[in-house]
Amino acid sequence: MEHKDYDFGLVGLGVMGRNFILNVADNNFKAFGYDLDTEKVDALKTEGGNLERVNATSDIKTFVDALAQPRKIMLLVPAGKIVDSVIENLLPFLAKDDIIIDGGNSFFTDTDRRETYLQEKGIHFFGSGVSGGAEGARKGPSIMPGGNKEAYQHVKPIFEAVSAKFKGEPCVAYLGPKSAGNYVKMVHNGIEYGLMQLTSEIYDLLRKSCGLTNEELHATFDAWNKGRLQSFLIEITSEIFEQKDDKAEGYLVDKILDKAKQKGTGKWTSQNAMDLGIPVPSIDIAVSMREISALKEERVLADTLYDRPKPGKIDKNELLTMAEEALYFAFITTYAQGLHQLADASKEYQYQLDMSVIAKIWRAGCIIRAGLLEDISSAFSADKQLPNLLLAPTFVPKVQETVASARELVAYAAKSGIPLPGLSNSLVYFDAYTSSNLPLNLIQAQRDYFGSHTYERTDMEGIFHTEWGA
Amino acid sequence: MEHKDYDFGLVGLGVMGRNFILNVADNNFKAFGYDLDTEKVDALKTEGGNLERVNATSDIKTFVDALAQPRKIMLLVPAGKIVDSVIENLLPFLAKDDIIIDGGNSFFTDTDRRETYLQEKGIHFFGSGVSGGAEGARKGPSIMPGGNKEAYQHVKPIFEAVSAKFKGEPCVAYLGPKSAGNYVKMVHNGIEYGLMQLTSEIYDLLRKSCGLTNEELHATFDAWNKGRLQSFLIEITSEIFEQKDDKAEGYLVDKILDKAKQKGTGKWTSQNAMDLGIPVPSIDIAVSMREISALKEERVLADTLYDRPKPGKIDKNELLTMAEEALYFAFITTYAQGLHQLADASKEYQYQLDMSVIAKIWRAGCIIRAGLLEDISSAFSADKQLPNLLLAPTFVPKVQETVASARELVAYAAKSGIPLPGLSNSLVYFDAYTSSNLPLNLIQAQRDYFGSHTYERTDMEGIFHTEWGA
Repeated sequence: MEHKDYDFGLVGLGVMGRNFILNVADNNFKAFGYDLDTEKVDALKTEGGNLERVNATSDIKTFVDALAQPRKIMLLVPAGKIVDSVIENLLPFLAKDDIIIDGGNSFFTDTDRRETYLQEKGIHFFGSGVSGGAEGARKGPSIMPGGNKEAYQHVKPIFEAVSAKFKGEPCVAYLGPKSAGNYVKMVHNGIEYGLMQLTSEIYDLLRKSCGLTNEELHATFDAWNKGRLQSFLIEITSEIFEQKDDKAEGYLVDKILDKAKQKGTGKWTSQNAMDLGIPVPSIDIAVSMREISALKEERVLADTLYDRPKPGKIDKNELLTMAEEALYFAFITTYAQGLHQLADASKEYQYQLDMSVIAKIWRAGCIIRAGLLEDISSAFSADKQLPNLLLAPTFVPKVQETVASARELVAYAAKSGIPLPGLSNSLVYFDAYTSSNLPLNLIQAQRDYFGSHTYERTDMEGIFHTEWGA
Repeated sequence: MEHKDYDFGLVGLGVMGRNFILNVADNNFKAFGYDLDTEKVDALKTEGGNLERVNATSDIKTFVDALAQPRKIMLLVPAGKIVDSVIENLLPFLAKDDIIIDGGNSFFTDTDRRETYLQEKGIHFFGSGVSGGAEGARKGPSIMPGGNKEAYQHVKPIFEAVSAKFKGEPCVAYLGPKSAGNYVKMVHNGIEYGLMQLTSEIYDLLRKSCGLTNEELHATFDAWNKGRLQSFLIEITSEIFEQKDDKAEGYLVDKILDKAKQKGTGKWTSQNAMDLGIPVPSIDIAVSMREISALKEERVLADTLYDRPKPGKIDKNELLTMAEEALYFAFITTYAQGLHQLADASKEYQYQLDMSVIAKIWRAGCIIRAGLLEDISSAFSADKQLPNLLLAPTFVPKVQETVASARELVAYAAKSGIPLPGLSNSLVYFDAYTSSNLPLNLIQAQRDYFGSHTYERTDMEGIFHTEWGA
């Protein structure tokens, strides 16, 4: 049965793994799967249809022996210690120059550690983010590989074939050395957190201020998805609002508990941005809101203790116009923050990232795919050293045209007691980032007052300390 | 010269160390200092006046031998590897049950590691935050010790004597085992970041909207400091505005560059809050604003690219009234977040923190000392299990009375292009925390749609998944 000529090996035949391997086979590569669970192995063999095309086993030696060298073995297993243990299990059977690709959301420093470890053994290791969920894995995900550039040439034809296509261009590219791929995927997810928070709070605004029904919300998001907000998240949001409940009367969205979970990538994005010293408040607040949402019992109690203002009167059509503009403004601002973080991480970790390429491979397949990414890619093509999207000449008018609605809605919501955390953080980020003068001179004065931490001056070079109040 | 009867040893005779040791001596304890820098050693000997009372050396054996057993040796050296190296240098000369106290801002996991390491050698280790700056060290700081409870009895008389007093009560208490002291000090600093950001942005609002002069700002903060906002930070802010520049015409605050630095404790607070899953957005945004402030060149460029709205007209007296109320609201909300984090950390790390005691020892000596802490301490005395200050019966009216001004000012500033990041994050935190219904049901629907992450329902128990759009 084993011909040592399978092109691609895949460890972990869960939903993602099974879909990915079938996708590989669809593209005329012979794929071999491995999982300890024999039911999953059998299911894949059946679903694959032809064992010459898709085969699978629960025996690791059989698995490795079936693959052509240099072997290309992708892991789609949960991030963490399982990745290390799979690597250890594979190692005795591998040969020099074989390639292991971790397709999970591993923390980037783990990827660096594993790459160094495997390099000593002559094995190439790729941290390669995959976005698109189960459907993306089956029909074409966005793939974000990082690792050894030469070794990538062996993986490239397969990844380019299976990836999503945007106007024919594959949504995969070699991103950089070491953990570049995992890092880019992490920030992708951080942006995803930000966009999801923004979408959810605009929904909250529309229902709490003007009482939009789910039908109206569906129609609104559907219309928005045909314009400049066109994106996967707006599209599925539109579909979510029309999903009927199959367990009770009415719409399903109304029955879902408002406690959001998280798997950590958004948190990592925020935490690492702080290590770099790059502000990403629209992502930070999205993490905070998931945390607050989890405190359901406290929220229910707190709600009984405080009066909430009645939402102010607002014209529904004006509200919808402003909401679309504000959301577009905040989407841009959120991408700007995430890309700023990537640009800085690229320097800090020597990833040599090409921001326009990253925006390109996000145009299809991934969760944050959006029409906007075409413009973002162009902006970074035009200026490879662009420090922040808000400084791109093509983005200035887009922001300038829509920020006024963000102002109006933040003001309206603040007075109405409707939290718009993502939008208000996008706005304060914008207002602070575009302020040549911030009041942090006072903070430096305070720090020097109580801690002799010194300060700089606007009118002369040097480091100064004052005996305040002396 | 060495009598082996000095009560207290101190390593690191910088400003903080010298001031702390003189404070110890003032309280009739015999203190011995150690520093490699002989100039600092000589200066301390001179300043101490009487070698029987305050002595110092650059020889570590002389230093250790001079101390009565069990030795109590405090380190006031920069956090990081220096602490480890000082410990290694001391170890050969120490005896069982000697006590090392790290008075710096060490990261709490470092403290846990060091305590375990030293425990094996029979040495007690205390992570003990000290707040109050150079002046506090000299005249009475707030001290936050954590470690072995029995061993603390040896340190207690000295710390109680040298600490700040609030109505006669010492601002020091045994806080809990392991790194409890460092953790509490870290969150103290996180709250400090939040309060400093709030103070600075209210200053920005007052100058940019109504053009308040430094004289008016001084008078305003001075008046506020006589009311419910009474606090060290408001007091020094008032003084900062009247400080004349000694290098040029005018007021010094106007010449200080608006790039704020940070030493990491605020960042650690935010990052660790995310690990715990506790929302502290008013602290997160204070960290972000220091980061944005550092991007001065980008800000100056961005400012030229965008039009900023003219600040709306607003009555100066009304503005001042609202600013005081909003600042009080946001101070409460910021303390609430930090204390929420401490309460959760206490469970996670088994610190057994008593929140009312922590609020008590912050009432004097430390940077975040404020009249408000008396009320906070009472609220936690009344309910030891209080999950969040916003749920305390005594705080509900304080918040209810002032939140309307926070709403007005966030709305005004959003429309005027004046960033109030701390205030708006305090408001969204409040509005979200007091909302029994948040729109995170949509986020759970999105997560289930693209990632099959499942959701809970409001109307029945269980975990559900839907094939969306099917």
